[in-house]
Amino acid sequence: MMKVRKNDVDETVGRHCIAELYDGCPKKLNSESFIREALTEAAKRSGATLLSLTSHNFTPQGVTALALLSESHLSIHTWPELGYAAVDAFTCGAHTDPEVACFYLKEALVAERYTLKMLERAIPSVNLDRSPEVADPTQNEEQTHR
Amino acid sequence: MMKVRKNDVDETVGRHCIAELYDGCPKKLNSESFIREALTEAAKRSGATLLSLTSHNFTPQGVTALALLSESHLSIHTWPELGYAAVDAFTCGAHTDPEVACFYLKEALVAERYTLKMLERAIPSVNLDRSPEVADPTQNEEQTHR
Repeated sequence: MMKVRKNDVDETVGRHCIAELYDGCPKKLNSESFIREALTEAAKRSGATLLSLTSHNFTPQGVTALALLSESHLSIHTWPELGYAAVDAFTCGAHTDPEVACFYLKEALVAERYTLKMLERAIPSVNLDRSPEVADPTQNEEQTHR
Repeated sequence: MMKVRKNDVDETVGRHCIAELYDGCPKKLNSESFIREALTEAAKRSGATLLSLTSHNFTPQGVTALALLSESHLSIHTWPELGYAAVDAFTCGAHTDPEVACFYLKEALVAERYTLKMLERAIPSVNLDRSPEVADPTQNEEQTHR
């Protein structure tokens, strides 16, 4: 996987946070409206901009919600009967922190235990591999927010 | 993270495949309709059931698409100017293979190089940790598909 230079990091590397939440509140985990509100707040607290939110309430229980962000996405899948939620938060840009989103969801769902894994997504560095006329991320604020 | 017994694996462990696609076709990477069709086909080929699909076309370029599945989700974020796409495919159940979804997207986007990382998501095992009256996944086919 390509390595980026230190001074390119803010614009070229996304961080993907994978969290497992255990022993959460089954009622909250099974409420589609609660999960939607929690994901909206998680996006806000992480510094991201929410563009759209889609969700599904499974029968007889469980919720999936996906938040499309200017900076990538948040997802949550819940198993209320197990007190469990699988969360991932992928954000790009120095102004966002996906770990904050995961931690907020852990608190909101009253999860007593959690594990967290942080992955770096190695977006190729424009400055290293492309000529400026092909793409200059400094001229495209919206693009660099993803 | 909790370990599940071998005979619980199919119902209790999700697989989350994280892929980086490099040197793909900029035109395809920048076409929201192409990305939506590719994600739909990727879901189908992985054995998953697509429940909803949401997408966004960034200005001046780039697409994000999120597929909500019965079995979890697929996501893709593209940087056409870099020939790059960040993909993740999270599916649950023995009938699905998230790697197939990632590989299909690599082919569809004509990515010359890719990296792939497979994570196991450790959903707690009902049979190990809960009494049957709390939750019995065998009585809930839809739930076990996530």
